[in-house]
Amino acid sequence: MAKRKVDVCLTPELYHLYEDNDRVVVVTDILRATSCMTTAIEHGIKSITPVATVDECRALQERGMIGAAERGGEKVEGFTLDNSPYSYMDPALRGQEIAVTTTNGTLAITKSASAREVIIGSFLNLSTIAKYITSLDADILIFCAGWKGKFNLEDTLFAGALCEKLEDTHEAECDAVLASQVLYSQAKDNLEETLKQSSHVQRLKRLNIEKDIAFCLTLDLYTAIPVLREGKLVAL
Amino acid sequence: MAKRKVDVCLTPELYHLYEDNDRVVVVTDILRATSCMTTAIEHGIKSITPVATVDECRALQERGMIGAAERGGEKVEGFTLDNSPYSYMDPALRGQEIAVTTTNGTLAITKSASAREVIIGSFLNLSTIAKYITSLDADILIFCAGWKGKFNLEDTLFAGALCEKLEDTHEAECDAVLASQVLYSQAKDNLEETLKQSSHVQRLKRLNIEKDIAFCLTLDLYTAIPVLREGKLVAL
Repeated sequence: MAKRKVDVCLTPELYHLYEDNDRVVVVTDILRATSCMTTAIEHGIKSITPVATVDECRALQERGMIGAAERGGEKVEGFTLDNSPYSYMDPALRGQEIAVTTTNGTLAITKSASAREVIIGSFLNLSTIAKYITSLDADILIFCAGWKGKFNLEDTLFAGALCEKLEDTHEAECDAVLASQVLYSQAKDNLEETLKQSSHVQRLKRLNIEKDIAFCLTLDLYTAIPVLREGKLVAL
Repeated sequence: MAKRKVDVCLTPELYHLYEDNDRVVVVTDILRATSCMTTAIEHGIKSITPVATVDECRALQERGMIGAAERGGEKVEGFTLDNSPYSYMDPALRGQEIAVTTTNGTLAITKSASAREVIIGSFLNLSTIAKYITSLDADILIFCAGWKGKFNLEDTLFAGALCEKLEDTHEAECDAVLASQVLYSQAKDNLEETLKQSSHVQRLKRLNIEKDIAFCLTLDLYTAIPVLREGKLVAL
């Protein structure tokens, strides 16, 4: 089988340059949106509705969903859930429907919603995602949520990790693939140490969530793949 | 003296997120626009007027300037000069005024024109640029021209090289600084070999300009710094 193509979009501000509805899009926002989503689906949450604004999230909460709204790394007042993956392990949430808005991750999901398929990637489900993609005959775009439109390191490292696993089946479309692979190969023996320098980890440290960060950098803990179906993330 | 800030804008599509007219901007388009500009000023060309469109460039050529227009790596018909640095060494060009438009580099220059100062960086004048910046008490933005709005490797490697030289005087503002430094540290012992994988080098190879590429990756051959003054690049 001829190799398919893989590309990396480093931030939502660049998505219009990569938009191609024939591709499968893997959205990643390692700290912490897509790590939370993976955790939620793994733990039996029925669906997650990603929305771009706090107002939309509030409206869905008023209609009976459980709301999770984060801005600048912190929970927005008036919502039930925060942006810690540990919050999504609560057995009381099994079978529930959740509405989520975050600073970066949900924007990337809503921007790519018209793609052939949108799946959610994190280090937690890295190998499962890679296996699923190699089972498809499809070009792939890895879509990094970044930080307020800018490049960030942790999402790019995930992109590099996934590209590395797709080397036998997919070929690079542009330099962002090469760069993310070099960055990951340098960082992979100690992701946590590498990320201590990153601007987002510096921001999050002030919020005392080192435990969340360590969890989000754990490889292959889960086999769940959240996939977007009619506006909701559900188990593939 | 307190450290000043350094940031890296990876493509012109992200410039609005970094725009701050108090900063000194270093524009780089290694293959080949800013390498040509550095070469031109070093070789006594009086001024270079960067313009965004082929039409503007043609109009300036009709008014007596020497025109250089490139699109997709190739010279546009009807213009005198191409985008090879060797073309700018011609003694007949000394003292002449040139008008230039290129796919990426001139867009980055026109986008940042209202910054405190815009200077032109390339591997050819890397150390001179670094010395000049450390002599200023100013925050710096390294502005990579990229490729048609996307990230490219060669400009990011230059950004990493310059950030490395500014470590004692400037501190990183965001993750793009970290990433470019890691990429440069991995590549610096053999820039040409590293860039063989890059998409732009692959494109340029088809044009038989390996000699130009090798030249553009030469460190510290020149001491000229082109600076933007009233719409024209002149010697600092």
